[in-house]
Amino acid sequence: MKIALAQLNYHIANFEANTNKIIGAIRQAEEQGAELVVFSELAVTGYYPHDLLERKEFIKKAEQAILKIAQECTNIAALVGAPSINQSPRGKKLFNSAYLLNQGKVETVRHKSLLPTYDIFDEYRHFEPNRQFEIVPFKGKKLAITICEDLWDEQPTQNEFGKDKLYTRSPLEELSKHQPDLVINLSASPFSYNQENWRKDTLVKKAIKYQLPIVYVNQVGAQTEIVFDGGSFFLKEDGTIPVELAYFEEDFQVIDTDNPTSKPIEHEDYIAKIHQALVLGIRDYFQKMGFKDAILGLSGGIDSALVCALAVEALGKDHVRGVLMPSRYSSDHSIDDAVKLAENLGIRHDTIAIQSMVNDFEEQLKPLFNNLPPNVAEENIQARTRGILVMALSNKFGNILLNTTNKSECAVGYGTLYGDMNGGLSVLGDVYKTDVYKLSHYINREQEIIPHNSIVKPPSAELRPDQKDTDSLPDYDILDAVLFNYIEMNLSPDEIISKGFEPETVLKITRMVNQNEYKRFQSPPILRVSSKAFGFGRRMPLVARYN
Amino acid sequence: MKIALAQLNYHIANFEANTNKIIGAIRQAEEQGAELVVFSELAVTGYYPHDLLERKEFIKKAEQAILKIAQECTNIAALVGAPSINQSPRGKKLFNSAYLLNQGKVETVRHKSLLPTYDIFDEYRHFEPNRQFEIVPFKGKKLAITICEDLWDEQPTQNEFGKDKLYTRSPLEELSKHQPDLVINLSASPFSYNQENWRKDTLVKKAIKYQLPIVYVNQVGAQTEIVFDGGSFFLKEDGTIPVELAYFEEDFQVIDTDNPTSKPIEHEDYIAKIHQALVLGIRDYFQKMGFKDAILGLSGGIDSALVCALAVEALGKDHVRGVLMPSRYSSDHSIDDAVKLAENLGIRHDTIAIQSMVNDFEEQLKPLFNNLPPNVAEENIQARTRGILVMALSNKFGNILLNTTNKSECAVGYGTLYGDMNGGLSVLGDVYKTDVYKLSHYINREQEIIPHNSIVKPPSAELRPDQKDTDSLPDYDILDAVLFNYIEMNLSPDEIISKGFEPETVLKITRMVNQNEYKRFQSPPILRVSSKAFGFGRRMPLVARYN
Repeated sequence: MKIALAQLNYHIANFEANTNKIIGAIRQAEEQGAELVVFSELAVTGYYPHDLLERKEFIKKAEQAILKIAQECTNIAALVGAPSINQSPRGKKLFNSAYLLNQGKVETVRHKSLLPTYDIFDEYRHFEPNRQFEIVPFKGKKLAITICEDLWDEQPTQNEFGKDKLYTRSPLEELSKHQPDLVINLSASPFSYNQENWRKDTLVKKAIKYQLPIVYVNQVGAQTEIVFDGGSFFLKEDGTIPVELAYFEEDFQVIDTDNPTSKPIEHEDYIAKIHQALVLGIRDYFQKMGFKDAILGLSGGIDSALVCALAVEALGKDHVRGVLMPSRYSSDHSIDDAVKLAENLGIRHDTIAIQSMVNDFEEQLKPLFNNLPPNVAEENIQARTRGILVMALSNKFGNILLNTTNKSECAVGYGTLYGDMNGGLSVLGDVYKTDVYKLSHYINREQEIIPHNSIVKPPSAELRPDQKDTDSLPDYDILDAVLFNYIEMNLSPDEIISKGFEPETVLKITRMVNQNEYKRFQSPPILRVSSKAFGFGRRMPLVARYN
Repeated sequence: MKIALAQLNYHIANFEANTNKIIGAIRQAEEQGAELVVFSELAVTGYYPHDLLERKEFIKKAEQAILKIAQECTNIAALVGAPSINQSPRGKKLFNSAYLLNQGKVETVRHKSLLPTYDIFDEYRHFEPNRQFEIVPFKGKKLAITICEDLWDEQPTQNEFGKDKLYTRSPLEELSKHQPDLVINLSASPFSYNQENWRKDTLVKKAIKYQLPIVYVNQVGAQTEIVFDGGSFFLKEDGTIPVELAYFEEDFQVIDTDNPTSKPIEHEDYIAKIHQALVLGIRDYFQKMGFKDAILGLSGGIDSALVCALAVEALGKDHVRGVLMPSRYSSDHSIDDAVKLAENLGIRHDTIAIQSMVNDFEEQLKPLFNNLPPNVAEENIQARTRGILVMALSNKFGNILLNTTNKSECAVGYGTLYGDMNGGLSVLGDVYKTDVYKLSHYINREQEIIPHNSIVKPPSAELRPDQKDTDSLPDYDILDAVLFNYIEMNLSPDEIISKGFEPETVLKITRMVNQNEYKRFQSPPILRVSSKAFGFGRRMPLVARYN
């Protein structure tokens, strides 16, 4: 059978744009002689619409979009993801469904059975699970139509307290009883650099176990924090993958399931993939929000330099503006490094010294500070003065502020709320400092864009004389290893210590993570590239006793 | 049977404090001759521990706490809420359970069947639902043990797109087949001023339908945003409620189920209840976070005056500090009103004029502002300068900043991110401006605490000459009515218009709500008093096409 895989980038709630995009792919598939074109999970709405699914007018628009798309399916059939209403008086209002559109109408609808409700996933909040397993006949073949998690009843786990079987049923086990010819899976599976093989491993096991080929169509593009990486594929019953679509971009391919071929995809290392994810994340955030221009503070340090380089790739050099805001503690090399970066990238940059405002704040506060010794209060005044300046430019010119905090800092609360934690989007909040270095080298792979000195100098917030990050934090290689074990691997402090880390260091770090939940609560949305990013996928109580 | 209802205020993850509190109540119940003492849902951990439930060491501590408490149950039995591990290889790792502790050990464990996963509730994220319905024999009686939502298989709905039967099963229908003598319900049911009768109505229907008495024990106290109001009760099979415990405070009572009596509880109107909820919310946030002192900016307006009065009630006048930060646009009466409020409350207050810093910012930014006309950029500089000053005092002295934004402002984005939207806790973020007025009159019910002038003058942000809120917003009675229909009632703009509101006004307001999701994303936690507060219980995509 000739099937088209349509891997598209949707915009949440933009029914018009999504519908037009889907119809365009249907016509393309028809022209190329496909009998069926497959789209991804919740294609009509974009994944994930969250509580918009609770709004009647939203569901109505999704239904209208499906009907409009169905009218295009006269000489070709399409499988399209969209919500549908649960007509039973009992259970959640909606199903997460796959619509088979054929002969100008909705031929049949199948619903998702396994609803992921962990990490960033909230599907039980809105959907009732399917409990009926039926095959869909199409052109003499029997299709087993599944949606994303439906094939994940057995899944890899990252730590021993996780479970590999989160669900009580196996949809493919049920469907296989009806001897299907082909499994189709409509997906919305996000990118995680440290779980990149999970998807193929999981589906390959299913294909071999049930001796069934699988057509897998994923979404691509970023929806605020979540980056979908595409990489749709056709998987044969022997576990080989003869067809694979592009990563981090839209792609489209018509395959013959009896004789599938395609040009091979080059797989890059995880740093190159994180790089692609972040550029796509920035680009889609701006495009889908209707913004064009970014602004950010340039400190001369590696984090702001990396964000600036990524932003220029995503938005173009004419749409990124850098602001240097030196204080009396800023070293000469910081200013030079920031200027050099801006020149290397060819972006507009301006300089505003902060000292006069900082002095004025300190002067006005002096009568109330009771001659107490300088502490974090004075340091934060500097960071917040910069925050005001860059937000003033943002407000005046409509440039969106990019946040430059990395995951290591975000984890331990090394940053000033309402100061350098400001921003519309956090670009590096899910990238550990050790990977910030690797990404910077990657950016410089062909020529020096990020100044060498920004990469090699000891990291410093420069909020007091001769300050270094290592004054209050362990070395980043230790810090990041402990954080990864605590956050991604979900290990207890004792378990981390038993891996050979110093007890004092581990307890200090985990305590800092716990004590800074309140800061992260007010963080901008963070582009997610790992299996456990701060934000929506990691829900920790604020008011709690953390030991 | 003599049963004790122990309505306690737990601290999330504070196993030591929660265990000691539970053991204290067990001893008290034993002394008063009770045969069984009932605690609330997840009493050992506090409700809701969120992703702490995914941590092995957390579950271990909960298990240890249960064993410790069991040892105290030698002459009395106890029903205690805590998580338990799902031993099946399939399904989520945990159950949300009720432990029957008797004769020094765990006698039996029953699990929650209906897992709320909507609004603020996330239980499917962590728990597997119970599917086996068995009666627990105890002292010759047959107990139907249920946990909170288990009795809510049929529930009221606020709007026509909602559903009254969110679940496919009815636990009490199943349990009633075994002819129980008594239903026990361990609960963690939060306060919502606009759903205050739902709880009793729902349980009364169940009692009458199955002709069964119900012992209902709720949690009390605030956990960050969520306020549990207590109000535990004993409900007879005829639907009458002879025993009711206190609201918004811990309470304890031993009842004889054959002859239940208690002194009646006085029910206050919704404004008095919101008042109690907010005071409890502030007090518990501070106590449970280990903070003592609050700080806030006093503008002379009604919002900051109300928050200040609530904070003094919650923390005491010696633990609240006010800061006046007038600008050139502040009217004399604003300063007078703020001073008068501080004097009425007897709190420390200081004044720092912001003009010199604002001038300096404007001066430094002038070369970059290209002579563009003043706009929101300049207004935000004022709000953010105040934000820096009050945060500097917060950082210097360890006072936690209280946010004073009300729900109407929060909804339409009438506030400055990193300025007046700062704070550790938003006190009024779920209170519409029209209720801010009512609460202020309530505060003044015996004497003038909030200056009369703060209540009667036209609301103004005072960020430009002669500014009034009504320059850019509809009157608050219209605004709040439209907002309530859009947010709490989840109606579409068309439906709101059909209720008689001006189309232009409705579309303007709903557009403002949608366009300000990004600001609310970075809001402090908001004390929840309604059925739909901004924050955790209302999850909207940022990157979306909103019409």
